[in-house]
Amino acid sequence: MQSTHLREHNLSLVLRSLVGIETPVSRAALAKATRLTKPTVSKLMEELIGAGLVQEGAPLTRGTGRPIVPLSPARGTLLALGLEVAADHISVLGTDLAGEVTVQRTEYLQVGAGTVAEAVETSARLIGAALEAADGVPAIGICVSVPGRISPDGGRVLSAPNLDWTDVPFVEHLTADPRVASLPVRAENDNRLAVRTELDRRPGASFLYVRGSTGVGGAVVLEGQVMPGEHGWAGEIGHTVVVRGGALCRCGRRGCLEAYVSHHALRELAGLGTDVRIEDLVDALALSSDRAEVIGTIGSALGLAVANALNVLDLSTVVLSGYLAPIAEEIAPVIRTTVEAHALAVEAGPVTIERSDALAEPSLRGAARAALEPVLASPSSWIRRLG
Amino acid sequence: MQSTHLREHNLSLVLRSLVGIETPVSRAALAKATRLTKPTVSKLMEELIGAGLVQEGAPLTRGTGRPIVPLSPARGTLLALGLEVAADHISVLGTDLAGEVTVQRTEYLQVGAGTVAEAVETSARLIGAALEAADGVPAIGICVSVPGRISPDGGRVLSAPNLDWTDVPFVEHLTADPRVASLPVRAENDNRLAVRTELDRRPGASFLYVRGSTGVGGAVVLEGQVMPGEHGWAGEIGHTVVVRGGALCRCGRRGCLEAYVSHHALRELAGLGTDVRIEDLVDALALSSDRAEVIGTIGSALGLAVANALNVLDLSTVVLSGYLAPIAEEIAPVIRTTVEAHALAVEAGPVTIERSDALAEPSLRGAARAALEPVLASPSSWIRRLG
Repeated sequence: MQSTHLREHNLSLVLRSLVGIETPVSRAALAKATRLTKPTVSKLMEELIGAGLVQEGAPLTRGTGRPIVPLSPARGTLLALGLEVAADHISVLGTDLAGEVTVQRTEYLQVGAGTVAEAVETSARLIGAALEAADGVPAIGICVSVPGRISPDGGRVLSAPNLDWTDVPFVEHLTADPRVASLPVRAENDNRLAVRTELDRRPGASFLYVRGSTGVGGAVVLEGQVMPGEHGWAGEIGHTVVVRGGALCRCGRRGCLEAYVSHHALRELAGLGTDVRIEDLVDALALSSDRAEVIGTIGSALGLAVANALNVLDLSTVVLSGYLAPIAEEIAPVIRTTVEAHALAVEAGPVTIERSDALAEPSLRGAARAALEPVLASPSSWIRRLG
Repeated sequence: MQSTHLREHNLSLVLRSLVGIETPVSRAALAKATRLTKPTVSKLMEELIGAGLVQEGAPLTRGTGRPIVPLSPARGTLLALGLEVAADHISVLGTDLAGEVTVQRTEYLQVGAGTVAEAVETSARLIGAALEAADGVPAIGICVSVPGRISPDGGRVLSAPNLDWTDVPFVEHLTADPRVASLPVRAENDNRLAVRTELDRRPGASFLYVRGSTGVGGAVVLEGQVMPGEHGWAGEIGHTVVVRGGALCRCGRRGCLEAYVSHHALRELAGLGTDVRIEDLVDALALSSDRAEVIGTIGSALGLAVANALNVLDLSTVVLSGYLAPIAEEIAPVIRTTVEAHALAVEAGPVTIERSDALAEPSLRGAARAALEPVLASPSSWIRRLG
């Protein structure tokens, strides 16, 4: 049993190394990266290539040495599905092991307390269509991105204020639909999925991640790892209080950061219609006559919440993502004023406010990436299945 | 080299196990606790006993089996010194490896920006007296507890608002005094030292530790480990903002938790004289006619800061320490009202507000405990020195 366990561990190790990198690598480079011996890596690769999980590129000859065979995650042999449930749309995105997007669809609808069944129906339809488009490529499973807090087992949406959902067994509903077939489904918080797309770009870094989307959420990254917290929602900055007894938040509380900086709040602050979508928010804001005032309100609220979080976490870097990314340059000075007035970190050095440079739709992509996880964690069952 | 390294690792492992427990244990129990073999433990014990770091008790006979020889950290063979610098006193406390207090002295004085030299002189005098009282027992070193933020190398006090100190090279000053001899000295934040006394009592627990003393500070404990943070001050809740633009804090900022809940703030709120010492604060408060109002103010400010911290850290337990411990029962309902209104953790289960049951003077004791660390980390150099 020990050697079976070791083999699984090593398979997982090499496959993860391959999935994390952008350019194909040689067996020798993989051996170096994983600290396994070259013969071990060669043997593991044989299995992974045989099952169609890894592919070999054309041999490269450099100088007079033996040609190098570049390895990369296989394209098109498996399908990982991410599903994003947001206030005004539901999207599905499928990728293969190489992270290539093989299918993507969006439907616009108002997701709310009264439309859970419609959201489930739309989700199932999108998943069914994605599976059909995949044309028989085996699907690993589905990870659902939800702007709210999820039960630790990944099944129930405990609360998603911006969807007006409280204790919705979304995964149970979804798996009851025959179109979702017998695929494993789990839900995760949208911000925690989005931050995954940031990790590869900032290896080993520590930072507070703040993302503006349907609501405002975040995650804490400590030395390259997402801090879990007791319930899986560390970094939830959106409902920290910036004004005691302040503006009414959609969660029912008063004075939450989200009451000043959410999609809903911004539309109201800038006098925009309820039909302005999240992805159009920044453009709409640019045309608003109250723009400067809105930037001031957002920046000041964010500054206080961020300063308080940096103090408790003892961090000095903030990464702004979602609709905060495109306005990061403009908003950063306002945030900085408050942060520098209150963050203890300034006593040790500068506080850095960075803009996320992640892909578009980070939580949807992060969800698809998370749906790959079962293969990365236990490649051998997939080798048996595909071999 | 490998085996030297392994020996040091194992010596450290068994010595730490012994220092952490309250009753003497057998070699067999130590082997079980450390997962080392019994012969290895016996060999290591021989060295530690020979050097006077561990002592054997009288053999105990149980039933018909072989007698058990109980082992415990040696008493009186080494001296670890903790020094506490607070707003109104400086104390020294010496312990041996067993944690027995062998010397303790306090001098009362107002420590402030203008009295750094006096604080250094008082500290050196107290240390000199403690060393003299130790009568030749070798001293390991000194750990200084300071109510402020310390440079990562443990040498400079970057800021200690309640002492009115900014960038004071306290360790440098102290080691320049001949009475401190050539002992290693390092400074650490008072709350981070105090929380150490809590860890043994709550093995593996995760909680936010909030301590009222000269100021209000804290620490974050994740699964039994103190979270370090980037600069060593994670959990610094005292300067998170509870009222934007609120009361002026001694740190120069406005609206900090500490502006409402520090020793200074409480004396003012309760109309007490500046001569009321920290240890008498709770008794003085009991006699104050504004008691209910003061409890309300403290509890409400603490509640908001704690709720915000619990959200970002995703924790659901708070431990109140320092002068907050004796009033914990009374203050907890007030804190709970605000916490339950704002902490997301309540969606997953109850938030627990506990009272610290640690020893008196936790930061002073924690400092002495920290001063033991060099022996626990590298016993072999001490075996050579003492053998």
